[in-house]
Amino acid sequence: MLVQKYKNMLSAKSVIRELSEFATARGKEIGYENVFDYSLGNPSVPVPQEFTDTMIKLLRETDTLTLHGYSPSLTIPSVREKIAASLERRFGIPYRMQHVFMTAGAAGAIAHAVRLVTEPGDEVLTFATFFPEYHPYVDLSGAVLKVVPPQFETFQINFDKAAEMMTEKVMAVLINTPNNPTGVVYSEETLKKLAALMTEKSKEYGHPIYLITDEPYREIVFGGKQAPCVSGFYDNSIMCYSFSKSLSIPGERIGYLAVNPACEDAETLVNMCGQISRGIGHNCPSSIIQLAVAECADLTADLSVYETNMNLIYNELKDLGLTIVKPDGTFYIFPKAPEDDAKEFSKKALKYDLVLVPADTFGAPGYFRMAYCIDTEKVERSLPAFRKFIKENY
Amino acid sequence: MLVQKYKNMLSAKSVIRELSEFATARGKEIGYENVFDYSLGNPSVPVPQEFTDTMIKLLRETDTLTLHGYSPSLTIPSVREKIAASLERRFGIPYRMQHVFMTAGAAGAIAHAVRLVTEPGDEVLTFATFFPEYHPYVDLSGAVLKVVPPQFETFQINFDKAAEMMTEKVMAVLINTPNNPTGVVYSEETLKKLAALMTEKSKEYGHPIYLITDEPYREIVFGGKQAPCVSGFYDNSIMCYSFSKSLSIPGERIGYLAVNPACEDAETLVNMCGQISRGIGHNCPSSIIQLAVAECADLTADLSVYETNMNLIYNELKDLGLTIVKPDGTFYIFPKAPEDDAKEFSKKALKYDLVLVPADTFGAPGYFRMAYCIDTEKVERSLPAFRKFIKENY
Repeated sequence: MLVQKYKNMLSAKSVIRELSEFATARGKEIGYENVFDYSLGNPSVPVPQEFTDTMIKLLRETDTLTLHGYSPSLTIPSVREKIAASLERRFGIPYRMQHVFMTAGAAGAIAHAVRLVTEPGDEVLTFATFFPEYHPYVDLSGAVLKVVPPQFETFQINFDKAAEMMTEKVMAVLINTPNNPTGVVYSEETLKKLAALMTEKSKEYGHPIYLITDEPYREIVFGGKQAPCVSGFYDNSIMCYSFSKSLSIPGERIGYLAVNPACEDAETLVNMCGQISRGIGHNCPSSIIQLAVAECADLTADLSVYETNMNLIYNELKDLGLTIVKPDGTFYIFPKAPEDDAKEFSKKALKYDLVLVPADTFGAPGYFRMAYCIDTEKVERSLPAFRKFIKENY
Repeated sequence: MLVQKYKNMLSAKSVIRELSEFATARGKEIGYENVFDYSLGNPSVPVPQEFTDTMIKLLRETDTLTLHGYSPSLTIPSVREKIAASLERRFGIPYRMQHVFMTAGAAGAIAHAVRLVTEPGDEVLTFATFFPEYHPYVDLSGAVLKVVPPQFETFQINFDKAAEMMTEKVMAVLINTPNNPTGVVYSEETLKKLAALMTEKSKEYGHPIYLITDEPYREIVFGGKQAPCVSGFYDNSIMCYSFSKSLSIPGERIGYLAVNPACEDAETLVNMCGQISRGIGHNCPSSIIQLAVAECADLTADLSVYETNMNLIYNELKDLGLTIVKPDGTFYIFPKAPEDDAKEFSKKALKYDLVLVPADTFGAPGYFRMAYCIDTEKVERSLPAFRKFIKENY
């Protein structure tokens, strides 16, 4: 009952949306600048001027019928070429045009990837903590999402449980690194171990298990480090990327799916993407936006504020005695609540105008997420409120 | 086997694409200006300057985080409001924001509409001649497309067959007016008769049959006329619109779905659209494109060239003795081939550098489609070639 499924989704209230609505309402009472709203993962740094300039240049200098004309069904060739070249330059993997398909952000890429490699009833394995939107992407494709419980000490992968749950029905593994909500980057060691497990199980079951990697936070890594390129560790991998965070343009719904050149049937998979897009009527992302991001593929917005914010929050919360794994990147931090019920904790925090998201839906009950994509000045003002909240309640 | 389905779609060669590729290759030999390419329905009139100016203004004057920020899951409220107001102004139906959902063109709207009102296995009825892309939109939703054969004299609806085929399994009727490929506009009489039949059958079966109306050519109607607004004739109707043709921006993938305010559960249907978009990972159309079309909702490009072209071709083909229903609008004309096998006819035409699409996939074997969205000057040069072709072969 698909229609009923959509209706059920409607009635399932989103905790994040409810909190965000509280923040907006409270903002009207006391001024939004006084609400310490850590609920939403909306980029807060301006779009790079180069992106805006590129858009204006395209509008001024390109023939309108070319600029706004139909994309071919596999998206614009020159754009795919530029993305492939950028990936090869950065990661040393020989991507070519035929491995790249432009999508509606990482969301569109993941939803396509799941449809590419699963039949209804097949299983997709993911690891807590995980992005809750994986549920609609997987559920509505007809496949089944299975969640491996977290490894709380480091928020890397719980391999004992992973090995147990990687049954014959699993056709794909879906990972998110750098991770929302923990901010943790999967280490080389983790990725090697995961690749070894998947290779072993693929052989055992006689079918490939595909690795779908959700990487929208790839450019937000702290301490001058780089996140290891997941596709370098496993041949049958499908990279899902979004420019939402790196260029601060989430509303433009632009990203790509890149099939590892070493993947089985790589080109056929990309060609099938065009057919999936036909079926959902999406066809292609906006043509002007495709052309603009191709020119900005190697750019990012000035993302340094996220690291500044992370350090401020991490140090304060550590000092208050909270249990936290220090984030390697993203704009999230994921502390353990000082009481078992994170929902209660979050409710109490509202009295101090602190909007914190209890993290049950991320697969880690008892934790809470803070999205610190807000002004540093506001982060600084929030810390005394946080201290007061903890001191008065715990 | 969904994956196999996508693979099969890949191997099914598109006649239109093959012809278009021939035209491009032949163009390299003799100059594209000498290939009379009537294969593709790509708009040929420039994008209105107001659209380009609006885009540049948005880029210059709007805060980048607002302009390119996430759309709410039901798309941008101010955009939905402006579209609703425009519809009410034009058609006198009291559309409001809550009846409108912005989509990836009419394709996205139709694919959503089918998912809104059918379960897998349900039937969607359409009338030949019909747009062949209805197959992927319906097939990949899990529903089944049934095609009522054409009424060749007028290319209105074959009601005898329609009544017979509107069984209990039919949950939706999908129509396209002005029609691709015939250019015919369904008359008020046709729409009244269709509404009466659907009302009767809905009552008989005890479930609503929804009318999904595909209207991307609504603004291209000849003789100073207007196409009747389909939603004015039937309450349970879902309008699917695209700005691709009216503003010549097909690559931007922008349009909307508007549920008739009198439709059962109208607001719930619109809310469900947001959940369907979540599931396919599409979420929303590009935010800047949504904002730009909202400002241009009452505008069209200068579409008069299509009528000029139609008259030139219609008169010439009539004079040559071909059977044609005169188009009321669009940029298509749909004559009967002077031999039974339209594929053979189309093949012979290529020797005269005339690229004509045999129309079997549109549900009318023996006919061919000409997309005359090309320069009038080229249409004029093509007519002697057409005359020579017919005279030498028939």
